[in-house]
Amino acid sequence: SESAGEGDESRDYDTETQKALEEIDACQNEIDALNEKASEEILKVEQKYNKLRKPFFEKRNELIRKIPNFWVTAFVNHPQISAILDEEEEECLHYLTKVEVEEFEDIKSGYRIKFYFDENPFFDNDILCKEFHLGQSGDPASKSTAIKWKDGMDLTKRHQQPPQQQAKNSRKRPHQPRTFFSWFTDHGDASADDIAEVIKDDMWPNPLQYFLVSDIEVDENGLGDED
Amino acid sequence: SESAGEGDESRDYDTETQKALEEIDACQNEIDALNEKASEEILKVEQKYNKLRKPFFEKRNELIRKIPNFWVTAFVNHPQISAILDEEEEECLHYLTKVEVEEFEDIKSGYRIKFYFDENPFFDNDILCKEFHLGQSGDPASKSTAIKWKDGMDLTKRHQQPPQQQAKNSRKRPHQPRTFFSWFTDHGDASADDIAEVIKDDMWPNPLQYFLVSDIEVDENGLGDED
Ligand SMILES: [Ca+2]
Ligand SMILES: [Ca+2]
Ligand SMILES: [Mg+2]
Ligand SMILES: [Mg+2]
Repeated sequence: SESAGEGDESRDYDTETQKALEEIDACQNEIDALNEKASEEILKVEQKYNKLRKPFFEKRNELIRKIPNFWVTAFVNHPQISAILDEEEEECLHYLTKVEVEEFEDIKSGYRIKFYFDENPFFDNDILCKEFHLGQSGDPASKSTAIKWKDGMDLTKRHQQPPQQQAKNSRKRPHQPRTFFSWFTDHGDASADDIAEVIKDDMWPNPLQYFLVSDIEVDENGLGDED
Repeated sequence: SESAGEGDESRDYDTETQKALEEIDACQNEIDALNEKASEEILKVEQKYNKLRKPFFEKRNELIRKIPNFWVTAFVNHPQISAILDEEEEECLHYLTKVEVEEFEDIKSGYRIKFYFDENPFFDNDILCKEFHLGQSGDPASKSTAIKWKDGMDLTKRHQQPPQQQAKNSRKRPHQPRTFFSWFTDHGDASADDIAEVIKDDMWPNPLQYFLVSDIEVDENGLGDED
């Protein structure tokens, strides 16, 4: 930690300046300690409200299950998510019955997005989970469930170039349009995963608004006001 | 506010779906209310710590006054601030005795940066203040103290092109290198005032580290550790 004490690298300040610098340093330490306490208290508030919100999110998920194709409709109506959905993926997402976003208990360390699926012709998993966590270096990293694709159904393989062409560009990654499952399985830059952020910060807080819009634009009046 | 009740724009959902949508909407309203309460509590924590930090910032400012050229040194050592300081401005900032950053009581609505000056050959003001606030539209706007330049000392006029050349490019703003006082007097895009943000979020929280570095790079060891 920083201190204005004398040491190898100390410059020659006069005694009064040196004393003032040490006192500034002490002040700065008090300010830093208060900043840390503020962060801790804010974290506690966030944790408290995460707990309070949880039963409503669970209730909401139960209700959503009653509505056929709720999630695929919301995803198709969301401008950024629909942009990465290809036709077969859209078909696949008809089997998506539940979405959950969970922040880790200490919030800052990460979150996970869970996709629950019915029996479907594409893969054997019931739950696909993509998870973001701060690595030991402090940088965000992601990992996701290995998808057990059924024979010939691997949707991440539909957009790859033929092997010959891949070989030609061997030093570059082959050009591959970004799709939902290529997003899900990509961990190249977890610190800039815009789709995960859109799901966590925009879709999850209010999926109803995206289910209700028929166009790409959000209709602020929703289903029409009651009065 | 959003509701899933029937209305002009209501689509034809079956009764069960319609009921589920209304219940989701009710859930969503509970979640929104909790979000609002969470924001209010976080604001209170921030206000509390702003109050607790204040005496330390005041003490720090008193101590800083004892150190000749503290602020101009810290500014010159800061990579982004030094980048906009021209020679005469640096001379002028030798008269800067105190800096204060104050968030408004409700924090979200804005903040002000106050620069206190000794009697100096450049202008008559004792305090120059640049203030950021959310306008009625919700967009940030800024304003700043009108500087009472002494005769021939207006530092914002040093970098303008000669009138002839200005006329030529009359439809564009004349090319003008960005300087400290052109920053101070510019209110063109308050939502992207990087210098104000650097002063508020980087310089103000810990100016000592910038005073202590002799190079442009921050020496993490500061003056050397005491143990
Ligand atoms: Ca030190
Ligand atoms: Ca409505
Ligand atoms: Mg669900
Ligand atoms: Mg001061």
